[in-house]
Amino acid sequence: MATATLDFWFEFSSTYSYPATMRIGALAAQARVVVRLRPFLLGPIFQAQGWNTSPFNLYPAKGRHMWRDLERICAELKLPFRRPDLFPQSGLLAARVALAGLQQAAGSAVWVEDFCRAVYRAQFAEGRRIDQPETILAILSVLKIDAEQIMAAARSTDIKDKLRAQTAEAQRLEIFGSPTFITSDGEMFWGNDRLESAIAWAKRAS
Amino acid sequence: MATATLDFWFEFSSTYSYPATMRIGALAAQARVVVRLRPFLLGPIFQAQGWNTSPFNLYPAKGRHMWRDLERICAELKLPFRRPDLFPQSGLLAARVALAGLQQAAGSAVWVEDFCRAVYRAQFAEGRRIDQPETILAILSVLKIDAEQIMAAARSTDIKDKLRAQTAEAQRLEIFGSPTFITSDGEMFWGNDRLESAIAWAKRAS
Repeated sequence: MATATLDFWFEFSSTYSYPATMRIGALAAQARVVVRLRPFLLGPIFQAQGWNTSPFNLYPAKGRHMWRDLERICAELKLPFRRPDLFPQSGLLAARVALAGLQQAAGSAVWVEDFCRAVYRAQFAEGRRIDQPETILAILSVLKIDAEQIMAAARSTDIKDKLRAQTAEAQRLEIFGSPTFITSDGEMFWGNDRLESAIAWAKRAS
Repeated sequence: MATATLDFWFEFSSTYSYPATMRIGALAAQARVVVRLRPFLLGPIFQAQGWNTSPFNLYPAKGRHMWRDLERICAELKLPFRRPDLFPQSGLLAARVALAGLQQAAGSAVWVEDFCRAVYRAQFAEGRRIDQPETILAILSVLKIDAEQIMAAARSTDIKDKLRAQTAEAQRLEIFGSPTFITSDGEMFWGNDRLESAIAWAKRAS
């Protein structure tokens, strides 16, 4: 039996990607499914369908339900939650850092998973601004990562191109939101509430 | 302890309202929660935010995921599923019949629940057109309901006004999609995947 894998596509500004990111590691490990982190940007995808901001801002009633729903979900999971003052916050720098980390470790960068969780926690639990380099630097420092070196990589043309290519791939795959899970046989699952189904499918597909 | 109640707001053309409608009766009975059926129309709500059809048609990638997701959900629930040739189909007549039935039975119309399930099944499992009176008549006939009498009521000014008022109330409550569940203490839950949480909340709130 081949190793079961699951591609985890996520945008750092996405609200429901917070609980998904906090949950996926343990759930996948339990099911022996290997998660491949695929950070991307939703901005270009939203723009292509005529949105210049999050649909949760464009459609306020939907947005109000989302914030309350997320609060309930976090309470149930015992995840800290605090609605950020600014939403959405650009996930560009965080996505570049994550990509740079994944590239350096050739896919087995445990710290990148920690980094992702810390970025979501900063944004949705600690009232910090993930679009500000200080926040990203502080997170790297806690993780004891050489910040200067990884930030240089994150700002390199190579990584900028890589993130652009990854976002183009997301668009080609018809990804329209975050989190999105894609199994090795091409099944797409969208949303934190589909995580369990995605992992079960990934296991069966292997 | 007061009787726990849960308002179930639904639009007959809504895809995810199919599994929700098939599931809510048994789940609510098990939890001793009384469900109040609140059919309404999404059309005016969508129009108010600039949509002239379902968002699943306006955003095709999202639509493609929804159909596949719904197919998977139905398979897991062992519910028959067949993608309708036409989507969305107007739920106007079905909603009026349901309202007329609820009015006549003063809220305890068991056949209305059967009727709702049959309408969703016709649309999402049997390839029938719920916007055509023949389908509604055939469903009423199977349920042994006096079709002539209920259709007359459904087409009365009273019921037309009632459906308009119910849709206005949905809008006032900031309902933006179907299915939506609202507990007696005002918590709103949107989506088939929130049904269990809504029932649990309704129980605690009573």
